[in-house]
Amino acid sequence: MNSIQITDTFFSKYRELVRKEMIPYQWKVLNDEIAVNIERERNDDTIPNEKSHCIENFRIAAGRSQGHHYGWVFQDSDVYKWLEAVSYSLKEKPDAALQKLADSVVDLIADAQEDDGYLSTYFTIEAPQRKFRDLAESHELYCAGHFMEAAVAYHEATGNETVLATARKLADCIYRWFSPEEMAHPGADGHEEVEIGLMKLYHATGEKRYLKLAKHFLEERGKNPDFFREQRSSEENYIALLNGVDHFPLSYFQWHKDIYAQDTAEGHAVRLMYMCTAMADVAEATGNSRMYEACRKIWRNIVDKRMYITGGIGSTVTGESFTFDYDLPDDTMYCETCASVALMFFARNMLKNETRGEYGDIMERALYNTVLDGMALDGRHFFYVNPLQVLPEASAKDPGKSHVKPVRPEWLGCACCPPNLARLLASLEKYAFHEYKGAVFADLFMSSSAQFGTLSVVEKTRYPWEEAVTFTLDSSDTAEHAFAVRIPSWTSWGKGVTLTVNGAHCDLPAPGQIICCPSAAGDVLCFSVSEGYLYIRGQFRQDTLELTFDMPVVKMAANPAVRSENGKVAVMRGPVVYTLESADNGEGLYRLFLRDDTDFSYEFKKDMLNGVGVITGKGYRIAGAVCGESTPADTPLYAPYTDETEERAEQVRLIWIPYYAWANRGKGEMAVWIRQK
Amino acid sequence: MNSIQITDTFFSKYRELVRKEMIPYQWKVLNDEIAVNIERERNDDTIPNEKSHCIENFRIAAGRSQGHHYGWVFQDSDVYKWLEAVSYSLKEKPDAALQKLADSVVDLIADAQEDDGYLSTYFTIEAPQRKFRDLAESHELYCAGHFMEAAVAYHEATGNETVLATARKLADCIYRWFSPEEMAHPGADGHEEVEIGLMKLYHATGEKRYLKLAKHFLEERGKNPDFFREQRSSEENYIALLNGVDHFPLSYFQWHKDIYAQDTAEGHAVRLMYMCTAMADVAEATGNSRMYEACRKIWRNIVDKRMYITGGIGSTVTGESFTFDYDLPDDTMYCETCASVALMFFARNMLKNETRGEYGDIMERALYNTVLDGMALDGRHFFYVNPLQVLPEASAKDPGKSHVKPVRPEWLGCACCPPNLARLLASLEKYAFHEYKGAVFADLFMSSSAQFGTLSVVEKTRYPWEEAVTFTLDSSDTAEHAFAVRIPSWTSWGKGVTLTVNGAHCDLPAPGQIICCPSAAGDVLCFSVSEGYLYIRGQFRQDTLELTFDMPVVKMAANPAVRSENGKVAVMRGPVVYTLESADNGEGLYRLFLRDDTDFSYEFKKDMLNGVGVITGKGYRIAGAVCGESTPADTPLYAPYTDETEERAEQVRLIWIPYYAWANRGKGEMAVWIRQK
Repeated sequence: MNSIQITDTFFSKYRELVRKEMIPYQWKVLNDEIAVNIERERNDDTIPNEKSHCIENFRIAAGRSQGHHYGWVFQDSDVYKWLEAVSYSLKEKPDAALQKLADSVVDLIADAQEDDGYLSTYFTIEAPQRKFRDLAESHELYCAGHFMEAAVAYHEATGNETVLATARKLADCIYRWFSPEEMAHPGADGHEEVEIGLMKLYHATGEKRYLKLAKHFLEERGKNPDFFREQRSSEENYIALLNGVDHFPLSYFQWHKDIYAQDTAEGHAVRLMYMCTAMADVAEATGNSRMYEACRKIWRNIVDKRMYITGGIGSTVTGESFTFDYDLPDDTMYCETCASVALMFFARNMLKNETRGEYGDIMERALYNTVLDGMALDGRHFFYVNPLQVLPEASAKDPGKSHVKPVRPEWLGCACCPPNLARLLASLEKYAFHEYKGAVFADLFMSSSAQFGTLSVVEKTRYPWEEAVTFTLDSSDTAEHAFAVRIPSWTSWGKGVTLTVNGAHCDLPAPGQIICCPSAAGDVLCFSVSEGYLYIRGQFRQDTLELTFDMPVVKMAANPAVRSENGKVAVMRGPVVYTLESADNGEGLYRLFLRDDTDFSYEFKKDMLNGVGVITGKGYRIAGAVCGESTPADTPLYAPYTDETEERAEQVRLIWIPYYAWANRGKGEMAVWIRQK
Repeated sequence: MNSIQITDTFFSKYRELVRKEMIPYQWKVLNDEIAVNIERERNDDTIPNEKSHCIENFRIAAGRSQGHHYGWVFQDSDVYKWLEAVSYSLKEKPDAALQKLADSVVDLIADAQEDDGYLSTYFTIEAPQRKFRDLAESHELYCAGHFMEAAVAYHEATGNETVLATARKLADCIYRWFSPEEMAHPGADGHEEVEIGLMKLYHATGEKRYLKLAKHFLEERGKNPDFFREQRSSEENYIALLNGVDHFPLSYFQWHKDIYAQDTAEGHAVRLMYMCTAMADVAEATGNSRMYEACRKIWRNIVDKRMYITGGIGSTVTGESFTFDYDLPDDTMYCETCASVALMFFARNMLKNETRGEYGDIMERALYNTVLDGMALDGRHFFYVNPLQVLPEASAKDPGKSHVKPVRPEWLGCACCPPNLARLLASLEKYAFHEYKGAVFADLFMSSSAQFGTLSVVEKTRYPWEEAVTFTLDSSDTAEHAFAVRIPSWTSWGKGVTLTVNGAHCDLPAPGQIICCPSAAGDVLCFSVSEGYLYIRGQFRQDTLELTFDMPVVKMAANPAVRSENGKVAVMRGPVVYTLESADNGEGLYRLFLRDDTDFSYEFKKDMLNGVGVITGKGYRIAGAVCGESTPADTPLYAPYTDETEERAEQVRLIWIPYYAWANRGKGEMAVWIRQK
């Protein structure tokens, strides 16, 4: 992969927000220049009280300042993720002032690193005697992994050698302590992540020990069920670093079985996604089909039975975890932003092992829905939880829904989601294309300009609003190139895909068939369809391929086993899930239902919500008391059923907006799923 | 009220279970003769570990034994409620051995009482310096109130003077400390209850100070919002007696406003019900219409907007509390047994102030549904939470539903519900009839034989299965008597009420109308309908009144504002709510729905579930994957909606059993509400 420039207006807006809003804003928070209004997700006294103290922690650890550590035990990771986002941002758009700032942060981190390579400000400052002794809670390796990811990115973007050296020194320190050969110290981090970082360091340096250590940590999980407990009991005066973690079941940490035996998605969703992301990377790097198969089992369980239509994952706030098959409540779900970002990481790494359109389908579903939902259109407010149904009164008064916010808070008590969004969006090109076995694959669609060796690709599209994606392929040599375009599975809901090659219609081949159509150079390009991709082979000379993905508005139903959505439908168009807001449809969304006469219309509205597709259709509204109004004297709480209630429902014109764009017009109700009669 | 004997087979079974099972069993638990398998509702280290230690606590406090207090800070109340149930049981059926045991318990309690009248074993044994200093958590007055209730009942049943003297000494001790006149010490108990006990003591003794103190405690609530916090801060070395109580909002304790300003049902449901029960009693005793109006506001809010169809109350496990209007989720609700028992207490005391059929309607709805649901048919297993929908897998794997049990546990970590059930069922006659302004009212229907002064009433019925209730009224004098029978509001769902007087049909009067029909003595009895009651006036000479309450099987719908029941119906017949179980209908109850062709049948099955009415009707079942099965290859998680799924649903014959009788045939699914197309 040589270079990819994203020129797409849809995503450029977001990448610009990352660059102009999120990166500077987050710096101010990390550097305590801003005190923010933190949304307390839980009544938890360990949630810091409006200052980050992240950079100050490093200054103290580096001996440049005095004082105590403040904040979460994993506070360090905030600046690492910031640095990673900065790296991608600088790569896209150099910025001398920002680079100078980042360089100084790198120097500070290096200073805070201990002589043996150890790096974690909490333990350096407060509890050196507890290093590596509370892996269930310490997040030492978790933070290390995020630093490694940032270091590789920053080195790649700027050539800064200090950052890479610091990361290697840290990895070497960890290697010595956990030494797989000697099994000097068993165990792994309660929060998977270092494995991802080690793999990135391995790819960047070629150092095989990092690969070995990543694989080792993955295979340590579940080996000794008592590991965390034994660590706690062996400490004199053990004090919790994170309240309540010792009450979580082993599955929370994916520690209930070894990774090869895990066949369902269990526990904390972000932890699981990081584990799978690393497993998929290790599987490819070692050619380990057994590990890839383990990834496949978990992948299948999520996609078939434990994922929300928005690509959200995590059904419960307790442990921010999965629950069980088909348990997808839409009012108490978790659907953490970080978890869907990490689902994209997982999918992307699966593509390293095997070509399947489904991996791109899920990346796309997560991206256009839950991931983008994590950020307000102003780039300054964020969701931790991405719900499918919201009633502000319930968020306020039902303790079981206090984690479901009706508007995005300004910042978050646990600030992991915004930086995850930032680094993903700033490096989106890595998810748009991939190379595999000599072919170049387009997985996500956005206007861009890319060079893959001698193959150049220029892509133009107004996706996800318009159906056409046009590729102009060119190569500067005479080799035959292979270029593949993912065919989204949702194209089967409509009339499918139309292909125009150099201005002329070209039939889409059936599976197993090869169709060749004239190339720009007077030769032919040959097309085949396999595993959800359209392959194009030939010598490219400014060849234009225009694909039109039919995007009807579709009512979606869930598998009947998804109890919460029995009798309901959701609306989609292409990859985008749409939703109802009370801002457009009045209060009492629960009173609405559809019949078979919905008759959808679609229209792009450029001045609404930064430019969105809007869907309208015929719906029905039941009369009767709503929250806050008095009960009409003739509407008791319970009364004999009559079908008149629905027969007399008034017809209304309903308006759906893209799910990701909700909660940008103040506080109100929202509902993805609506009753269908 | 002179004497009432319940001869009813339906309730006699339960009263016998109380006498033969619950009372002896509970004694064994209290006396540590049995170690029980306690269901832990919450991960709370203060939950005792399988022994009660209740009686032992009293022995230690009395100096008859050595050791520490063990158990909840309110553990004492368990034996008080047991004693109260024993009292009612002895009244119905003398038992010398039981009375001897109870006498010895009374003596033990008196011994455990301190010289100044103070009584609470926890503080006597462990923390005398903290008496009355932690009213948010201590439950000192809560326990005192339960003892007063027990004392009055035991004295009434057996004439035991020690118990009444002990209770008076306790009440006097509390009076001195909290002395309304001197406001020596402000505040009230975090858990309302002493007010109920004081009122019972007042009614039994005529001592006006007890009435005054009850009113005082009620009016203290909400006066000083900081009261509990100030108590905690004023203590050196404050240690929580109950984890987490200091995190609850003021509304949990009904302390957010003074009682006259509270117009919605807020906070912990049992606390609120005890508060209202006492308020209604005080209102009547003092002729305080302002306090009665305060009761009315809360009553209206519950009945119109915050009650489940089963008479359950409490929408959230967090704080075991109400949430907001129309927020009645049927899978995460609380519906604590104690709360519905106390709803009956509240309704009963409202009848002291005003005659309204609605009070009896709600008593009846709670009794035949949530209250009876609290006990298994074997009398040895109990529910704390009475759900409207259960999926065993969800109870096991969704932390948000861990409080919802699919089978009744053997005993409960917090054992308040079984004794509450016991004392209610053992004193049921007090709820069946009441006297008011010279008339006798029949509020609940059960075969019985009662004497009210010179009026004798013999009632025969097979309610709630059969529609006829027959009263034989007789008096030994020439006075005109007034007898009133509640006309259940559900009779308006069917053909209403038919009246036969001394074998001949008698029209039911319209409101405002008086109709007279021949009496047995050759005179007339005159009938009028008012406030939900049928009044009969005349000289009774073995007059027979037969009322037939038409009981069709009815589909019930909830107010559209009840979001969780949009598009669903529940089935009722008379006062009984019916429900579906997987034991009768197969797994996957969520796959079922009804159309307009349900065509119900009803049949009484005497050999099933101790004899129950059973309802059958036509329903439909959607095919497709259910929990635990693999996804069929053609049933993806999300796919375009098609009405074929429901069009191709198979017809099935569904079976409904009474809600209270569910979970008596092993672990399975249950659902009160079902989708209606």
